[in-house]
Amino acid sequence: MTAPAAAAENLIELIARLAAAGRAAQRVLAGLDSQVKAAALRAAGAVLRSANGDILAANARDMTAGAAAGLSAAMLDRLRLDPARVEAMADALEQIAALPDPVGQVIDSAIAPSGLLLSRVRVPIGVIGIIYESRPNVTADAAALCLASGNAVLLRGGSEAVNSNRAIHAALSAGLVSAGVPAEVVQLVPTQDRAAVGAMLAAAGQIDLIVPRGGKSLVARIQADARVPVLAHLDGMCHTYIHSAADPEKAAAIALNAKMRRTGVCGSMETLLLDAQFPASYAVLAGLLEAGCELRGDARARALDPRILPASASDWDTEYLDAVLSVAVVDGLDAALAHIDRHSSAHTDVIVSEDAAACERFLAEVDSAIVMANASSQFADGGEFGLGAEIGIATGRLHARGPVALEGLTTYKWLVRGTGQIRP
Amino acid sequence: MTAPAAAAENLIELIARLAAAGRAAQRVLAGLDSQVKAAALRAAGAVLRSANGDILAANARDMTAGAAAGLSAAMLDRLRLDPARVEAMADALEQIAALPDPVGQVIDSAIAPSGLLLSRVRVPIGVIGIIYESRPNVTADAAALCLASGNAVLLRGGSEAVNSNRAIHAALSAGLVSAGVPAEVVQLVPTQDRAAVGAMLAAAGQIDLIVPRGGKSLVARIQADARVPVLAHLDGMCHTYIHSAADPEKAAAIALNAKMRRTGVCGSMETLLLDAQFPASYAVLAGLLEAGCELRGDARARALDPRILPASASDWDTEYLDAVLSVAVVDGLDAALAHIDRHSSAHTDVIVSEDAAACERFLAEVDSAIVMANASSQFADGGEFGLGAEIGIATGRLHARGPVALEGLTTYKWLVRGTGQIRP
Repeated sequence: MTAPAAAAENLIELIARLAAAGRAAQRVLAGLDSQVKAAALRAAGAVLRSANGDILAANARDMTAGAAAGLSAAMLDRLRLDPARVEAMADALEQIAALPDPVGQVIDSAIAPSGLLLSRVRVPIGVIGIIYESRPNVTADAAALCLASGNAVLLRGGSEAVNSNRAIHAALSAGLVSAGVPAEVVQLVPTQDRAAVGAMLAAAGQIDLIVPRGGKSLVARIQADARVPVLAHLDGMCHTYIHSAADPEKAAAIALNAKMRRTGVCGSMETLLLDAQFPASYAVLAGLLEAGCELRGDARARALDPRILPASASDWDTEYLDAVLSVAVVDGLDAALAHIDRHSSAHTDVIVSEDAAACERFLAEVDSAIVMANASSQFADGGEFGLGAEIGIATGRLHARGPVALEGLTTYKWLVRGTGQIRP
Repeated sequence: MTAPAAAAENLIELIARLAAAGRAAQRVLAGLDSQVKAAALRAAGAVLRSANGDILAANARDMTAGAAAGLSAAMLDRLRLDPARVEAMADALEQIAALPDPVGQVIDSAIAPSGLLLSRVRVPIGVIGIIYESRPNVTADAAALCLASGNAVLLRGGSEAVNSNRAIHAALSAGLVSAGVPAEVVQLVPTQDRAAVGAMLAAAGQIDLIVPRGGKSLVARIQADARVPVLAHLDGMCHTYIHSAADPEKAAAIALNAKMRRTGVCGSMETLLLDAQFPASYAVLAGLLEAGCELRGDARARALDPRILPASASDWDTEYLDAVLSVAVVDGLDAALAHIDRHSSAHTDVIVSEDAAACERFLAEVDSAIVMANASSQFADGGEFGLGAEIGIATGRLHARGPVALEGLTTYKWLVRGTGQIRP
């Protein structure tokens, strides 16, 4: 065996050992009351607050190393912690502690003709792997969501945040243990060797679900390589279609908000479809241009405003995550649906119209995780959807779609209560 | 490119073309009323009945070829059709037509603080691949379940059943088209080249879900190779634990039924755990022995009856699917739970006890898709669970567990209805 192969083998063993320890701890967690889990999360939040100094000192070491390594300003901002960001992490733990516990919820029940009493009851998924990049707050947020849904978690953060993550993890552990939750419910993968990620992705049967948190290249690599199921979205290629019967003021406000409120979020609009019969397209475009958005349009869009640049074929499939927007003029709802069917990443697509029938047809026919009428696509968020938090937004077709929070981190089992029935 | 590589490339293109045609047809299907889908299934059943002669003639050709190829008697029995079996296929189509349509069901809805009206609505998964072996009835059953849940299906049956499957598929197609459903909703992969299965398993993004129907080696191969999500169970390593407080008569009846009613089904008992404090173990074992079941036991079980053979270590993980049973004596509920945790395939596990607290603890702590108290594990079946039918039983932890029927062949999308909301 060559040296790299031996090292990879050791990482496979390491991940197997961590996953087994997580599964054993998860079994203990599954037997704990909701109140104990909530108390553990609150205790973790309290330790996080009191360990503020240690965490900031660890983060300062990461920031120094990151600056020396030439990380971009944007990456350094994601990496940076300050007292307010630590406070926000602790707040998030308390908010998650206050959410209803999905574990044990009865989804449905029935009495079979045989007299058997059947019920489906929510149970944790098991062991969840979180693979993330430079934001240290994911360590606390993801751990809390997994714990609150009864799961064990293996956390693998970015190497640039290693000291921050260790300090946060130590605080979480101390809080959990003080409340009677096994420390192994939340484990940090103790090596920055990149092959550890490969070992996690290959750990089918040991890790039940992988959730990547980070940029497109991370998600693409994980989706390509994983043998473990992955819950994620690769792109947020979101469309807003301004129908002929749209209210002009609402249309302008929604388009501006959907693009410019925050350009870097996955729910931001990337393509604006203007109905050829909508009479106020010029005002919608002017609002975006005046807010500093670069517009790239097809020939008919460019005829509306000379400031619009020509779009290339790839623009219709480009998630800019920036103050850039592609604009096309379409002939009616059918053409809008066809464009969206061809180019959407199935994340969030929006119609703006006062015509209820047009809205309902759009809602029925667009096959995306989230389909909206008369609202900004930037509402695509677990918090806004009343989930209290989110582990991410999923664009796959199985298990959970759209914003995923506690319920999406559970599965179910069938309980069957009989009185001695045998099958004829 | 070598000749085999060129052929594999062509199969990848073939599967991509079939999947694309299926997806286009699925979009049409998604817009059809429940009544149209039900009428199409009834029409398919009627054509199946009237094509009885063609189907039996095609099946006779498969049977002749199978006998010449030396297929086992069991395989030939699975392959064989007769008028009653064709009638049963047509009946199944009518039963599936009568099931409630899951598509469009509102799972839940809420008003967000922003005033947005949120709802989760069931939608079809999309394009489903069914890979199966010699039973021709799967062609009709699986197609009907996929169609009734709004999905397109690619069917890849065993080569030994090729003529039967083509005749059944032709009848289904004629029925669907007569009712206005596109023929491409149900497509038979038109080649018996084994590499076509590989192309289906690799078709991530084109096929949304693979459901294997067949023996363990088929399922194992598919689980190992698939890049598309798979809904399946590999083993039905089912346990029945007779607790100290079990009713002796119920215990004997349940054990006998769980093993011997049909030994070849996935829900049949493979290991019997007898509590050391249960006073009537001898009678339970005698009933099984007298019914012709071979028993393989640990030392304490063998002390109960000299007819029990010694079990080897592998017996505790062996799904016999035959009149063979492994038997262990355990010291109480904790020991039973530990044995099941170590050896269960997470399909169906059962406790027999009149002690309600013991039953509830078993139901809570056993982490299997189906957990039963005081009933035969042979009830593990979609029909018995009131689902009307089943595409299979899943032991994975995501999307759907246990018996899977129409609901498990759907996913959901979020519909968001606003009045012009923008996000602050």
